[in-house]
Amino acid sequence: MKLFRHGVSGAERPGILDSAGRRRDLSEVVPDLSGEVLSDVGLQRIRDTDLGDLPEVPDDVRLGPCVAGTGKFICIGLNYADHAAESGLPVPPEPVVFMKATSAICGPNDPITIPRGSVKTDWEVELAVVIGTRAKYLSEADALKHIAGYAITNDVSERDFQLERAGQWTKGKSCDNYGQIGPWLVTRDAVQDPQDLSMWLTVNDQTMQSGSTKTMVYGVAHLVSYLSQFMTLHPGDVISTGTPPGVGMGQKPPQYLRHGDVVELGIEGLGRQMQDVISDPE
Amino acid sequence: MKLFRHGVSGAERPGILDSAGRRRDLSEVVPDLSGEVLSDVGLQRIRDTDLGDLPEVPDDVRLGPCVAGTGKFICIGLNYADHAAESGLPVPPEPVVFMKATSAICGPNDPITIPRGSVKTDWEVELAVVIGTRAKYLSEADALKHIAGYAITNDVSERDFQLERAGQWTKGKSCDNYGQIGPWLVTRDAVQDPQDLSMWLTVNDQTMQSGSTKTMVYGVAHLVSYLSQFMTLHPGDVISTGTPPGVGMGQKPPQYLRHGDVVELGIEGLGRQMQDVISDPE
Repeated sequence: MKLFRHGVSGAERPGILDSAGRRRDLSEVVPDLSGEVLSDVGLQRIRDTDLGDLPEVPDDVRLGPCVAGTGKFICIGLNYADHAAESGLPVPPEPVVFMKATSAICGPNDPITIPRGSVKTDWEVELAVVIGTRAKYLSEADALKHIAGYAITNDVSERDFQLERAGQWTKGKSCDNYGQIGPWLVTRDAVQDPQDLSMWLTVNDQTMQSGSTKTMVYGVAHLVSYLSQFMTLHPGDVISTGTPPGVGMGQKPPQYLRHGDVVELGIEGLGRQMQDVISDPE
Repeated sequence: MKLFRHGVSGAERPGILDSAGRRRDLSEVVPDLSGEVLSDVGLQRIRDTDLGDLPEVPDDVRLGPCVAGTGKFICIGLNYADHAAESGLPVPPEPVVFMKATSAICGPNDPITIPRGSVKTDWEVELAVVIGTRAKYLSEADALKHIAGYAITNDVSERDFQLERAGQWTKGKSCDNYGQIGPWLVTRDAVQDPQDLSMWLTVNDQTMQSGSTKTMVYGVAHLVSYLSQFMTLHPGDVISTGTPPGVGMGQKPPQYLRHGDVVELGIEGLGRQMQDVISDPE
């Protein structure tokens, strides 16, 4: 299934793509794409619904982030060997974990806003894992069962804030509209192999990132199991699994986003995002 | 006002201490200590209530974290010059920012759980700031107005996970029950000077930390203003402002928590916490 959320920011409603690719509203079936709705039982309730009975959602309605109730927005750093190389850093001996603020989360086509004082806003196409059921001390063999589905994230990053402003990466990862998630939450059963998905990102129609989840250092099952040793994962938590080469910081010379740029990105089977880059209007 | 939340974990209700120090249930007045309730207008509604009419809460009822709806649990690292020294690190040229998982948040007297594989679980008494209204690009002069109140946090930290397991600090800061918040949310008006509060922590009745918010490197107003340059702060967000000297890692030799230990901590005017240390029962 391809699920989504639609409507104005903060008041999104759940939706689903039907077999003809039409957008259907799911509000009558589930309250939102969060909590128990993301469990196998909750998703089965949607699967058992006759979509033909549901109202259509117009194509011009805004898409929101494809998951709600996200308590943690966890990211994995340097998880593609060739991206580590372009960053001038060794492949880490175990996953590098950091967090983005959940207040950075926005819809897949919402603008990237360049905050005041930013000079190095950068892009990162990533495969996101959405947790479906509570997970703690999981074995790798049990990990995939706790995943509701997959989505695209743009892990937008301010490299000056991240790397040159003292301490941890948080400051450069958490700005508003720095975490586009969606368009679709593609349920686990509909993704044959999360480690074999091509992915790409363009800036003003020029290809910047082109890779595959095949070259992840630590795969999805390992990451979910690994994280669950440190903290309980809850339904709606999002794990963004790292980016392949081609970020702005890795260009020669480095290239960063400017007001007026257009970023597009996609992952095989998960759809595509498109973002206008704007100076923060606030 | 001293506000609190009481009841079983995940289903807490709001409460308030009356002038005689009795616990009163606030459920009839506000839905919870979150969102708009934390604004000056929301808090005034509580202030205008005749507390004598409200039901009493028995003393043996569990206290929960004193704020709900926390989207971000932001921490400041190395924010006391003498703590930086005991950590063998220089005072940072600007605030060091990291995040704890909101899933680590628990009540003030809930146990500290030592996760599987932990060998270096450590303590950190900290002054927490609870955001009351949306804050972005604030000046320092405007910052305090956006604070609902103050509380105690124990920023429990696993030093091996934090410092020796590759990358960022997240892994050592985000374990379950690593973020006791409370007992009271003391409203801003009831704290005369947040930069002049004594603070202490004992382990098994032995004083380990003893300090004052006087020696913070970056004060509360600066921190709220600073953070709001990078990300929007929302009602219920918690900023834990760093710890004075005396953490376990700074002892000679280092000393960490073990099953059976008892930790107590307090900050002048904000109450006290007491935690049993237990091996994670899961």
